[in-house]
Amino acid sequence: MTATLFSEMETVRFEGPDSENPHAYRWYDAERVVLGKPLKDHLRFAVAYWHSFAMNGSDPFGGPTIRRPWMDRPDAMQAAHDKADAAFDLFRVLDVPFFSFHDRDIAPEGGSLNESLGNFHTIVDYLGQKMQTSKTRLLWGTANLFSHPRFMSGAATNPDPDVFAYSAATVKHCLDATKALGGDNYVLWGGREGYETLLNTDLGQELDQLGRFLSLVVDYKHKIGFTGQILIEPKPKEPTAHQYDFDTATVYGFLKRYGLEKEVKLNLEGNHALLAGHSFEHEIALAGALGILGSLDINRGDPLLGWDTDQFPINLHETTMALYYVIQAGGLGKGGCNFDAKIRRQSIDPDDLVLAHVGGIDHCARAFLTAARIVEDGRFAGQRDTRYAGWQTADAKQMLDGSMSLEQISAQAEARNIDPQPRSGKQEKLENMLARFF
Amino acid sequence: MTATLFSEMETVRFEGPDSENPHAYRWYDAERVVLGKPLKDHLRFAVAYWHSFAMNGSDPFGGPTIRRPWMDRPDAMQAAHDKADAAFDLFRVLDVPFFSFHDRDIAPEGGSLNESLGNFHTIVDYLGQKMQTSKTRLLWGTANLFSHPRFMSGAATNPDPDVFAYSAATVKHCLDATKALGGDNYVLWGGREGYETLLNTDLGQELDQLGRFLSLVVDYKHKIGFTGQILIEPKPKEPTAHQYDFDTATVYGFLKRYGLEKEVKLNLEGNHALLAGHSFEHEIALAGALGILGSLDINRGDPLLGWDTDQFPINLHETTMALYYVIQAGGLGKGGCNFDAKIRRQSIDPDDLVLAHVGGIDHCARAFLTAARIVEDGRFAGQRDTRYAGWQTADAKQMLDGSMSLEQISAQAEARNIDPQPRSGKQEKLENMLARFF
Amino acid sequence: MTATLFSEMETVRFEGPDSENPHAYRWYDAERVVLGKPLKDHLRFAVAYWHSFAMNGSDPFGGPTIRRPWMDRPDAMQAAHDKADAAFDLFRVLDVPFFSFHDRDIAPEGGSLNESLGNFHTIVDYLGQKMQTSKTRLLWGTANLFSHPRFMSGAATNPDPDVFAYSAATVKHCLDATKALGGDNYVLWGGREGYETLLNTDLGQELDQLGRFLSLVVDYKHKIGFTGQILIEPKPKEPTAHQYDFDTATVYGFLKRYGLEKEVKLNLEGNHALLAGHSFEHEIALAGALGILGSLDINRGDPLLGWDTDQFPINLHETTMALYYVIQAGGLGKGGCNFDAKIRRQSIDPDDLVLAHVGGIDHCARAFLTAARIVEDGRFAGQRDTRYAGWQTADAKQMLDGSMSLEQISAQAEARNIDPQPRSGKQEKLENMLARFF
Amino acid sequence: MTATLFSEMETVRFEGPDSENPHAYRWYDAERVVLGKPLKDHLRFAVAYWHSFAMNGSDPFGGPTIRRPWMDRPDAMQAAHDKADAAFDLFRVLDVPFFSFHDRDIAPEGGSLNESLGNFHTIVDYLGQKMQTSKTRLLWGTANLFSHPRFMSGAATNPDPDVFAYSAATVKHCLDATKALGGDNYVLWGGREGYETLLNTDLGQELDQLGRFLSLVVDYKHKIGFTGQILIEPKPKEPTAHQYDFDTATVYGFLKRYGLEKEVKLNLEGNHALLAGHSFEHEIALAGALGILGSLDINRGDPLLGWDTDQFPINLHETTMALYYVIQAGGLGKGGCNFDAKIRRQSIDPDDLVLAHVGGIDHCARAFLTAARIVEDGRFAGQRDTRYAGWQTADAKQMLDGSMSLEQISAQAEARNIDPQPRSGKQEKLENMLARFF
Repeated sequence: MTATLFSEMETVRFEGPDSENPHAYRWYDAERVVLGKPLKDHLRFAVAYWHSFAMNGSDPFGGPTIRRPWMDRPDAMQAAHDKADAAFDLFRVLDVPFFSFHDRDIAPEGGSLNESLGNFHTIVDYLGQKMQTSKTRLLWGTANLFSHPRFMSGAATNPDPDVFAYSAATVKHCLDATKALGGDNYVLWGGREGYETLLNTDLGQELDQLGRFLSLVVDYKHKIGFTGQILIEPKPKEPTAHQYDFDTATVYGFLKRYGLEKEVKLNLEGNHALLAGHSFEHEIALAGALGILGSLDINRGDPLLGWDTDQFPINLHETTMALYYVIQAGGLGKGGCNFDAKIRRQSIDPDDLVLAHVGGIDHCARAFLTAARIVEDGRFAGQRDTRYAGWQTADAKQMLDGSMSLEQISAQAEARNIDPQPRSGKQEKLENMLARFF
Repeated sequence: MTATLFSEMETVRFEGPDSENPHAYRWYDAERVVLGKPLKDHLRFAVAYWHSFAMNGSDPFGGPTIRRPWMDRPDAMQAAHDKADAAFDLFRVLDVPFFSFHDRDIAPEGGSLNESLGNFHTIVDYLGQKMQTSKTRLLWGTANLFSHPRFMSGAATNPDPDVFAYSAATVKHCLDATKALGGDNYVLWGGREGYETLLNTDLGQELDQLGRFLSLVVDYKHKIGFTGQILIEPKPKEPTAHQYDFDTATVYGFLKRYGLEKEVKLNLEGNHALLAGHSFEHEIALAGALGILGSLDINRGDPLLGWDTDQFPINLHETTMALYYVIQAGGLGKGGCNFDAKIRRQSIDPDDLVLAHVGGIDHCARAFLTAARIVEDGRFAGQRDTRYAGWQTADAKQMLDGSMSLEQISAQAEARNIDPQPRSGKQEKLENMLARFF
Repeated sequence: MTATLFSEMETVRFEGPDSENPHAYRWYDAERVVLGKPLKDHLRFAVAYWHSFAMNGSDPFGGPTIRRPWMDRPDAMQAAHDKADAAFDLFRVLDVPFFSFHDRDIAPEGGSLNESLGNFHTIVDYLGQKMQTSKTRLLWGTANLFSHPRFMSGAATNPDPDVFAYSAATVKHCLDATKALGGDNYVLWGGREGYETLLNTDLGQELDQLGRFLSLVVDYKHKIGFTGQILIEPKPKEPTAHQYDFDTATVYGFLKRYGLEKEVKLNLEGNHALLAGHSFEHEIALAGALGILGSLDINRGDPLLGWDTDQFPINLHETTMALYYVIQAGGLGKGGCNFDAKIRRQSIDPDDLVLAHVGGIDHCARAFLTAARIVEDGRFAGQRDTRYAGWQTADAKQMLDGSMSLEQISAQAEARNIDPQPRSGKQEKLENMLARFF
Repeated sequence: MTATLFSEMETVRFEGPDSENPHAYRWYDAERVVLGKPLKDHLRFAVAYWHSFAMNGSDPFGGPTIRRPWMDRPDAMQAAHDKADAAFDLFRVLDVPFFSFHDRDIAPEGGSLNESLGNFHTIVDYLGQKMQTSKTRLLWGTANLFSHPRFMSGAATNPDPDVFAYSAATVKHCLDATKALGGDNYVLWGGREGYETLLNTDLGQELDQLGRFLSLVVDYKHKIGFTGQILIEPKPKEPTAHQYDFDTATVYGFLKRYGLEKEVKLNLEGNHALLAGHSFEHEIALAGALGILGSLDINRGDPLLGWDTDQFPINLHETTMALYYVIQAGGLGKGGCNFDAKIRRQSIDPDDLVLAHVGGIDHCARAFLTAARIVEDGRFAGQRDTRYAGWQTADAKQMLDGSMSLEQISAQAEARNIDPQPRSGKQEKLENMLARFF
């Protein structure tokens, strides 16, 4: 292993809010105990292999702007090794506990299925070696079933059953690798599982294919004794015009339909929430209420743009509320905060990549500390509980527990000739209360 | 009964495409048999009481522009009778087979729950009388649980259990009335079942209240022997910032969660689909695939505006595709095409109301005839079936029917070292084929 | 004058960030000198008469929820006096330096034009009396040319010239009143100056009507010696489908077309910016660059909703950036920060109205203090200047000042065979720098 | 020249509406005279070089799916010649009167500015040869100043003056080439002329750079005697977060600011209109009213997606209305209908490309024929004129022509105590009238 882009850089350390060092954490004090455990165990930050090491700045209107040494190596497997060296160097610099990857991020496509699988396992083995001397563990693995032309009409939902089979083989090996590397989760994002036009699409058929595929994965997980979580990552659109895993509520219905709601949880992303017309906190709170919150792809989108900008989060108000609902839902468990965030096309210096992560980690840490103070303060939850206190009476409970029928409730209401009066929702008062924590 | 706004108008008749008479149908030949039954039985058009007789043109930035005689009557119950007279006159003019209403559209709010219920039943009786001499039947009834301040924080989802009880009583009576008037469906649209801010909202509690409420309604339906359909009408936002019945997929998950997916279907609206980020045809096709397509609120929204404009449909391409997927889903059954559409604030003449319906009915009839030709032609469905033909092989079926495991599929794929090739989706070719039907 | 809703309330005072008193300012220390003058003179806060005293909580799906004593008075002119008493009491409670109004907010529509004008002047006189014992001054007046049915097809842009004349008369009197009350600005918001459908609209004709109308107003301003600013408030849509004063850039082009760009400035609103697809800071920065920044309607919209929610601002990041660009543009001058913000429909208690303003004022003060620190720090502006430093060379200046032609520049580029290299835009680094100020 | 992908294909001919031949025009009868001239002279269809010959189906989530023979040639200049051969073969097949190109579509980037210019002129010469035996002429040329990394922070608006110079040289040569090839227009689309974040942007500086650049181009046009039109193509966002040429109104203001409104017109695109929150017909009608309508990029976007999908148009209602306003504006003059439209990523067969154009041409022809019938019928324009008839009176004209002051108009209105009554806007009636033409 030779020198990498990052090998000269020192590990970023916590120096406190007053530090003027741009390469220091001001808020992310990893070992600081909050709500009963260290900050690092709440947040479980991960660096995403694709955005950090494979992304090159190209967009639909222009070619690569970001060039890294490993991108120019003629030998694809050597490039993959170099990339891994650089990746683990960056993990060290950031002192980050986790990383995440797609098969194709770490290893090149081969000339055939078997060669691709071979390439993949070779690099998985190399990552395993790297991990022996690294503190950084695997948050999740996943398969890229959307970039190659063979997937252009879907992977599990492809009209061609051979693509289904190809995808199944790929996921089988990715799951094996994720287990081998001690990953805590396995993620499925259905990049091409959707449609461009209903004119050529059999919606019912494709949904059934997708349901079967997921069942196969769940069965296999149990068979091999993988104890991590299986996660679906919702996204409503892009690249396809309609993606089947639209949002939390849609995936919940899908899981219920195929009897998988106890087997699969969600990996929620801020930008994807936005594209679906939701706030990130809504998606988190809903997943919490439905018992399927798994992990976060923590990033931000631009509400004025209609595509996945995958930016590093910077808005304290929004991130704090997102993490507040994470705490309300009982935390992230085996999940974590994965930076599915990319530096801008114009951020071409290696230091831009480092600073983006330093800023993102610090931002989330600060937001979490703020959310924890809101929780510890308790007034917020208290106000909410007071609002619903009426439902704690015996009469009210009877309406909800099934012991009264519609006509009984109606008869009672008519007998009392009830006239319920509106009560203030106190939104602005609550917003003012919230402002005190920032 | 005295003369109404519409009593001088003659019934609108079918005169064929070449008619220059603006008060004639050019396409809606009610008795014309298509796909095995008369057009009127496919489309089952309904006039919506609220937009046609209660709406006054006011908007958030201005007061009423549309004044009807019954709106100025000082006696609210007399006004309600006059309104009913005018309504049935318009039904006669339009020769429309159905109408639909909320309790509050037909009868005024009283000084108490019991007085409101009394007013309601008085007018329901009057409607019953009117129907004896009318050809127009009731497509669906529903309760307005969103306009009065008592519902400002929700009806079934209100933090105050008395509002839940009040709502239950109201729906009980509306269901009784719908049955009494021979209605084919009962609709629930959750106008305030949502939230303005998560800060004061207990999402899990509110969803459970909503689930219980719907169960109560379904139980009561069976108890009284109402044989119509119970329908939920999805809408993603407006008036609340987030409505619980977001879209087809969300409501499906909700029904599954509370075990009601065999009891309740959907009343889908074009404008609501748009607000949720979907095409109308998507919502219809998905509901068809999930087996929960019930009825349509047929209107159009403006994709450039973010609120419910509820306009009469005018875009042949869009309406044809919507109705094509209705046919694919097996038709509307007990449902129909309800004009949840309102004339513009500037369309203040009574004739505007008549012409809007004539145009809307004719437009939908033409779109349906076009959709039927696409179905009869068969090439479309044929192309689609061909695309998925690979799934008809025995090997492919094995992957879907559960008889192969992930590792078996993977092993087979590796043994064959498969290399599936992309095949054209032929979208433009299909679009050209479609263009021939317009 | 009798007791009002607010007469028992004490004036809200600055108590500093640690105060737990919800009726105290924590950041708004009016006399604190920042960037050379007191905070109050930078921000020039105003309470909006319409949202605070006329708005009743109704929305397109429901009636009034907010009831104030003056709303139930049978005598409209007495109600207007009572409303004024309450308004000035609230101004005192908030210790706010300015207010703003439409003619129709303060005085009721009469039975004719002349009666309406009479009502208006009567109340204007009364406001004049109230102001003699109040510290609160008039930020701006304006005319409501959108609520009454006569304006349903536009005011200045109406197809009926009598509506143009009616509007002209109304604005003439509103401008007279604004001058009489010592107002610093006169605002025109074109609530119905737009179209619902191009089918019945003569775009060129309507734009010319609007241009002429504005010219008439500007001429009259000079004639009567009104030394305040004339402001247009851009909004892209709602209530009409397309509003002519879409955004900053559109209004700039309109002003240039009619030769008014030196006479008229802009009153920019956060929510309107959002509806136009812009950030508030974009609209402010652009107006600054074009020299037409006049004043702010400071509120927030919901990026997930497509209508004007007019909420009180709560997002520190956004408000800070907005005010940063205000400072960059040289400040608000005669303009101010007008709370065109309304409490939510469920916020029905009088205290909700007070707290909303306390929170809004405090939020903006804190954001301004933060923006001022960014300015004083200077590193931000410094980074930007460095980025463009190349344009300070003599050669570069020649390209911009017109002394080189295209072929000369080309010839020189070819002679040098230049190969300009991309330089990092450092967006994430700048975002991290920014985070230090929050 | 050897065989190309299209050399075996026969030229597509007009066969009339009943033809079942997918490779025939059913509506585009090029020589048919409508509104006084042949259809081909109204529509002036052009094939876009980039989407038809350079686009390879890649998107942000996947690599190329579309492979053409010239894309795999190792010698870039030979590939460019082959591509030109194929292009002119497709032009012949489609019998299309025009094409359009960017420098980079037709010729490869070289190792330096001068080499790139050399490559470009070599291929321009070759195109000139091809055109000698082709009926297809050049609608417009343009420069790609957005794909290469050097343009990542803008071309004319780059912080680096050398990029400005590089861009100037490139445009100079593209304009030379456009003139040499007899092009009717030269287009500027500012793909990177905008910003990603205001944090590193000097808005005023960049707008001035852009204004100067455009002035240089206009001056050079006159100097070399290029008699075609200079066109700006508005787009609001993508690739940048904010593009300076946002929409028609914005560009109009920009032209006025730099005194270029008589020198430059607009090339309007349907998808760009949509991204800006406008209908295509709005942008066309507004450009017509402002006298700056130049040409059309005729395509469609997806109102549910937030990026440029650049699809072939298929919605008759929308295209008809767009072309109706083109006719109202006096037609396209030297402009045309350029298919800035690309086949879908899954449409990988060469025949997909042919059919897409056949469908698009036929669709537009049919829409134009429909629009022409609406114009010839005259009732539409008649209804509109009637609506504004009041402005034809002498009194009304006085208000508009500047001969009355605000106080005179007001005095007259008060003297008459006018009470203008609302009149129906008849939107639904007009929509019904319109439906008759489809």
